[in-house]
Amino acid sequence: MSEQAYLVAEEAAPIETGDDVGVRWRTLTSADRTPTSLLTSGVCEIEPGGALNLHRHPPLELYYFLAGTGIVTLGGEERRVRPGDTISIPGNLPHGIRNDGTTLLKLFYVFPVDSFDEVVYTNL
Amino acid sequence: MSEQAYLVAEEAAPIETGDDVGVRWRTLTSADRTPTSLLTSGVCEIEPGGALNLHRHPPLELYYFLAGTGIVTLGGEERRVRPGDTISIPGNLPHGIRNDGTTLLKLFYVFPVDSFDEVVYTNL
Repeated sequence: MSEQAYLVAEEAAPIETGDDVGVRWRTLTSADRTPTSLLTSGVCEIEPGGALNLHRHPPLELYYFLAGTGIVTLGGEERRVRPGDTISIPGNLPHGIRNDGTTLLKLFYVFPVDSFDEVVYTNL
Repeated sequence: MSEQAYLVAEEAAPIETGDDVGVRWRTLTSADRTPTSLLTSGVCEIEPGGALNLHRHPPLELYYFLAGTGIVTLGGEERRVRPGDTISIPGNLPHGIRNDGTTLLKLFYVFPVDSFDEVVYTNL
């Protein structure tokens, strides 16, 4: 375990993208790239009309919504979300987010693992 | 481990206070009161002039700053913080926050433990 305190300014973390349209994220803590342990975190932005498609991964994940509105799919349910909403997603539960609003949707996410490379995604 | 998805709206979580002047928080996930596991989280607000005094606890803690500005003490160092800043604080490292600004300072915090009652604070 790292014993180093670590501070990062969000805008200093590189923007990452994948296959999902209108979705980008920045990794804030992940032991494969930051001197941190135990928690892997970042911020994700979804443009209006964009969606983080339905997926699952073995680790649990926590979302804290920062800005915008959208619809989260959790297993077979859909829930409308807005800033201040917090969702705990059990490991392997299918989940996704779509931004059906007119402004950027932004959320903070965290996994109880050292590093993002431990989070193996299965797209559904 | 809970296999239940859990959603909470921040304003639905009760406001909690302690001995620190101008400091209040809301617990968002903690296994002693929510059907969650592995991550204990919440939001903390510090009024202008208020301070979360220097303290330590065995679990590591992660801060993500949401609003306002202030000064974080980390071990023997002081760092100015603003929204988007993220700090990973190793277990048992003394830390504190003071709001020397004119607006509310707000942050999201998370510990890699099931429940807040596992986070034993020592005030310094």
